[in-house]
Amino acid sequence: MADLNLQTHVAHFTNPLYLESGRIIEPYDIIYETYGVMNEDKSNVIVVAHALTGSHHAAGTYEDESKPGWWDGLIGSSKAIDTDKFFVICTNVIGSCFGSTGPMSLQRGSSEHYRYKFPVVTIKDMVKAQRILFDQLGIHKVHAIVGGSMGGMQALQFAVHYPNFAKKIVSLASTYATQPWAIAFNKVAQESILNDAEFKHGYYKSEDLSENGLNGMAVGRMAGHISFLSHESMNRKFGREYKRDDGLYELFGKFQVESYLEYNGKNFTKWFDPLAYLYITKAINIYDLSRGFDSLDEALARLKSELYLVSFSGDLLFQPQEMQVLKDRLDEQAYMACDYLEVESDYGHDAFLVELEKFDTYIRSALEE
Amino acid sequence: MADLNLQTHVAHFTNPLYLESGRIIEPYDIIYETYGVMNEDKSNVIVVAHALTGSHHAAGTYEDESKPGWWDGLIGSSKAIDTDKFFVICTNVIGSCFGSTGPMSLQRGSSEHYRYKFPVVTIKDMVKAQRILFDQLGIHKVHAIVGGSMGGMQALQFAVHYPNFAKKIVSLASTYATQPWAIAFNKVAQESILNDAEFKHGYYKSEDLSENGLNGMAVGRMAGHISFLSHESMNRKFGREYKRDDGLYELFGKFQVESYLEYNGKNFTKWFDPLAYLYITKAINIYDLSRGFDSLDEALARLKSELYLVSFSGDLLFQPQEMQVLKDRLDEQAYMACDYLEVESDYGHDAFLVELEKFDTYIRSALEE
Repeated sequence: MADLNLQTHVAHFTNPLYLESGRIIEPYDIIYETYGVMNEDKSNVIVVAHALTGSHHAAGTYEDESKPGWWDGLIGSSKAIDTDKFFVICTNVIGSCFGSTGPMSLQRGSSEHYRYKFPVVTIKDMVKAQRILFDQLGIHKVHAIVGGSMGGMQALQFAVHYPNFAKKIVSLASTYATQPWAIAFNKVAQESILNDAEFKHGYYKSEDLSENGLNGMAVGRMAGHISFLSHESMNRKFGREYKRDDGLYELFGKFQVESYLEYNGKNFTKWFDPLAYLYITKAINIYDLSRGFDSLDEALARLKSELYLVSFSGDLLFQPQEMQVLKDRLDEQAYMACDYLEVESDYGHDAFLVELEKFDTYIRSALEE
Repeated sequence: MADLNLQTHVAHFTNPLYLESGRIIEPYDIIYETYGVMNEDKSNVIVVAHALTGSHHAAGTYEDESKPGWWDGLIGSSKAIDTDKFFVICTNVIGSCFGSTGPMSLQRGSSEHYRYKFPVVTIKDMVKAQRILFDQLGIHKVHAIVGGSMGGMQALQFAVHYPNFAKKIVSLASTYATQPWAIAFNKVAQESILNDAEFKHGYYKSEDLSENGLNGMAVGRMAGHISFLSHESMNRKFGREYKRDDGLYELFGKFQVESYLEYNGKNFTKWFDPLAYLYITKAINIYDLSRGFDSLDEALARLKSELYLVSFSGDLLFQPQEMQVLKDRLDEQAYMACDYLEVESDYGHDAFLVELEKFDTYIRSALEE
């Protein structure tokens, strides 16, 4: 069994990144991890794209970590995305907070953070920045792009805008355009951040937040966690169990589900930046494959990659019927290279991160020549 | 067509109200509205019970109002709850903020508000307080109790704890015990209130909030509104429509769904009290018909009323399967007097307030002798 060969790199770009809005980011960094070894003709590259709060750290475990990267069960030697065969790249998206340029980066030639001066970025912008990085690495075509949730949006956006770039596109737990249900949850999180006095209208000091985090973001994240789960997974995980049995006597007794939300909300604020949350949820909200085209059909008419769509039956955030829309449109266009799998799951949206055993075989065979 | 005969009353009680927790409230007020005319033998009384943010104002329109009471479409002359035939009473629950005693009431012999010193109240306490009021009015039996959501909980709690009190129980969009999905949404709202600096740890001045409301409660209410809707109703109402088409250029462009949540969240803070919201959501969270019994079956074995259960197919907050549990348990007990209707609706939980035409005939015939 070959080593994962986990490497972290930062690429620095001095040319401006022209954004969909007409604005630019200049200069900018992209941090990324690679796993496995690139073959000589660079034909074994797989791009993995992360979700809202994910990062370039998709697999492997650093010395100071207790948990591995977010898709470690899928990426590695002999795993579905087999690093014995493939050279895997995962970049942190533009606008995020793990090393790629985002709203808390310093403005050019200044010691000031961008904060709200950072331009709105879109999924298309995230993809474009990756494409420029890959070009610089001499990678002009890849074997596949794989991602879930916002990562699945990136995979689809790649397919539409760079139709010759990826042979295979695997998009999980995602959609062709963000629907109001998802926008609504993002709205609650955004407003909760904005309403926290400690957010200081965007002029918080990161150091001040590093200890206790931003409660407003914790509350917003709690709402997010509701959208990642399902009635079934909540019932199974929590039911009506009390963590402390003080229901009748104290106003703030704790059901297990409340403890779960509290813990995850609070913990989240220790490792994610509030402005990055605002910018990335914005990118998700305005994601729409048809933007710039007369219709979704026109956008999809550009496709050349093999498309593998995976949805999860219990996903309330990006519902199976949204993927079905894509499949139906492509069927109407007699596009043969699209395969669609709806995975039976009652884990909700989280399934793409936790029920790997239900789709890793599917991904493995999708990636086969 | 007879007049609605809308009357508002306040009953003042000097005896203590003994609560499920062992604590007391003393003295206390209950504000209530009545519609129609009580007949001589007091045999035509129908109790209507309100939801989380509802009030005793269920029908009719006051001179200074632009909108009628919350179930005006159902209550009135010749309507499903026909005030030509029935004398209808709707009380504001203990713990609320429209005139019945709640956390912002003054403590006995003091100019201090209760605030957190107010005891936790339960759905059973709310029902008990109503029962005491009805006794004082000389009403020892009623024709029916009808309610939706938390009102439906009250109807069921009446049925279990005062089995001889109501001939008919109509419970809509409700449950036998609050499930984690609903608790989770309440948690987000509670935390959002608690985290607002203007909440001042419960020591806010109502006057300070009356102008602009409490933003934290507005955000929490936005989360609530998500739980009241469904994917289908959101898609139909909002889709991906922009209210202002600035998606790419400003961080805070507004989708229709965002405007809706903002408006309703913000507006809500002008007419509801934050502490009351904390107390009533607590009551909802700890609602469980089986509390005090060895099992739900034991609780249900007490029933004597005719039971009419109504759920809505798209309700994500109190799902049809929760009502189905009640129906199944009663079937197992060979309890004949239970009828269950699942109304086809894609309005989500809100259906019990907005799709009256889908169940008003059902209620009308349920109330018939």
